[in-house]
Amino acid sequence: MIKSNHVIGVDIGGTNTKIGLVSAGGKIELQRNFRTDKYKGGPDYAENLAREIKDICAAVGDAAGCRGVGIAAPNVNFLKGTIESPANLKWGTFDLVGELKKYIDRPVKIVNDANAAALGELRYGLAKNLNTFVVITLGTGLGSGIVINGELLNGSNGLAGELGHLTVEPQGRLCGCGRLGCLETYMSANGLRRSVLYFLSQRPYDSELAHISYSELSAKAIAEAAAQKDALALDVLDFTVRILARKLADVVVCLDPQAFIFMGGVANMGEQLFAPLRTYFEESLMPVFRGKIRIIHSKMKDGEAAILGASTLVA
Amino acid sequence: MIKSNHVIGVDIGGTNTKIGLVSAGGKIELQRNFRTDKYKGGPDYAENLAREIKDICAAVGDAAGCRGVGIAAPNVNFLKGTIESPANLKWGTFDLVGELKKYIDRPVKIVNDANAAALGELRYGLAKNLNTFVVITLGTGLGSGIVINGELLNGSNGLAGELGHLTVEPQGRLCGCGRLGCLETYMSANGLRRSVLYFLSQRPYDSELAHISYSELSAKAIAEAAAQKDALALDVLDFTVRILARKLADVVVCLDPQAFIFMGGVANMGEQLFAPLRTYFEESLMPVFRGKIRIIHSKMKDGEAAILGASTLVA
Repeated sequence: MIKSNHVIGVDIGGTNTKIGLVSAGGKIELQRNFRTDKYKGGPDYAENLAREIKDICAAVGDAAGCRGVGIAAPNVNFLKGTIESPANLKWGTFDLVGELKKYIDRPVKIVNDANAAALGELRYGLAKNLNTFVVITLGTGLGSGIVINGELLNGSNGLAGELGHLTVEPQGRLCGCGRLGCLETYMSANGLRRSVLYFLSQRPYDSELAHISYSELSAKAIAEAAAQKDALALDVLDFTVRILARKLADVVVCLDPQAFIFMGGVANMGEQLFAPLRTYFEESLMPVFRGKIRIIHSKMKDGEAAILGASTLVA
Repeated sequence: MIKSNHVIGVDIGGTNTKIGLVSAGGKIELQRNFRTDKYKGGPDYAENLAREIKDICAAVGDAAGCRGVGIAAPNVNFLKGTIESPANLKWGTFDLVGELKKYIDRPVKIVNDANAAALGELRYGLAKNLNTFVVITLGTGLGSGIVINGELLNGSNGLAGELGHLTVEPQGRLCGCGRLGCLETYMSANGLRRSVLYFLSQRPYDSELAHISYSELSAKAIAEAAAQKDALALDVLDFTVRILARKLADVVVCLDPQAFIFMGGVANMGEQLFAPLRTYFEESLMPVFRGKIRIIHSKMKDGEAAILGASTLVA
């Protein structure tokens, strides 16, 4: 067998699946995307994913295919290697690794998507010189991956780093997890949309956002309105950033990390988000920690950190 | 030099200093206590501590003295080995290890008291078969030590595991750290005392505790009143336990530990504290964690876990 220097990294999202052919140096040399939501069941999806992986390996003319497949997916039980009833996939609990191995005679490993992103930052990103940090992905929800002394924190049930489910308000908004007031019901794309509606319910605003229905409203529209100094969008952003700052301060007294690294669609708001976040974060911190912990925006493209991080599982 | 099988473990509290001669098997064979608060300065205190350590080593007739000294103290900066302005000692920042080494020609190491307790539980206590857990000491304040995969979590500034400073209410009670609403302003001996006053400020109670001044009120009196079904004490306990349960649930989504181990004066309330705590904790947990994480009461005597844990630093 010719030894390949390539590995495959896969990022499975609710809408799209991204497959990257990753070089030994951590470069995504080739990428293909396909619709995740076209498949009704796990086995159908796995069969197609295997075909796409073989295609991408063949395309690069590498006789050995690739050395292995690392997968980032939502709701992964790291200890069992299964995907457990992810809200966005509707496939039920499903042994993706087992299914893929029917088609692919190479090591296949799977990890939670935000944990994969943390591994990607650790190996190839802003965390290359860090050993204790937290990656937070701000998309539809809020995901997180924690690295302690250069190792991913898995926890005793394979479920550590679910910071989207820190409680903000015990009697607050209903969360997908079944509880009330979780952080991701405030700080996420959906959280921002809910906050726009809440603020409009409390007082009148002369805002473009008042003309958009809840189902049409997007985090992007809110970010654009904030950039235009729309009062409603600015109030929502201020409200949200204060909540996030407070919960990050709680994470700090627990972990004492060097940095929080943000990525995902909502993080693309950039300094409009990070400038006030740094201010409120410093105010919220226990004094001994002030000035010591960085809040930074990942330099990787969407999905890149997860693809690269997943690929490190088999590199 | 004759090789000794003994090490010294020291637990420095605001009132008392406890010195234990610890055998290779983790037994405290001899213990001496002296008043910490008799000494106005760090150097005076260190000189006396060195004398006491030499005395206890001589008393056991061990020609080699002991193999080393491990110290548990409040506000230790683990990375620098200094005690940093502990509220209860009034000595300012102070290099105890450096001072002791003037008198003792053996390895001397120092660690935060709650972290020492976690090491003591890990090596000799209820955590012998655990690898990821949190020790919480409920005394005047609330201290904590976190163990991840069998290793103490130090954090990037040597300050991890300050769970007494998780924020409960951003506009809440003034904490010694300078912020508002920290967990230890509610869940600790002082927190319970403050809650008694708060509840009395809100409505009348026919309670023995209403006849005790704030300065005379103790956590022990509150625990005794609760044991007698005093309505005020029961309301305070219920209020406090709900707060603690909620913050422990936050720690769980971060760390996914196997257990929380409680110790210290307030924990001696026993099942009166732990039975409702377990109920509220389960209710507060993100559903995936329910039924998976234990809340237990240390079997070690007060100070024993810290002495034993400190001794493991040089064992």
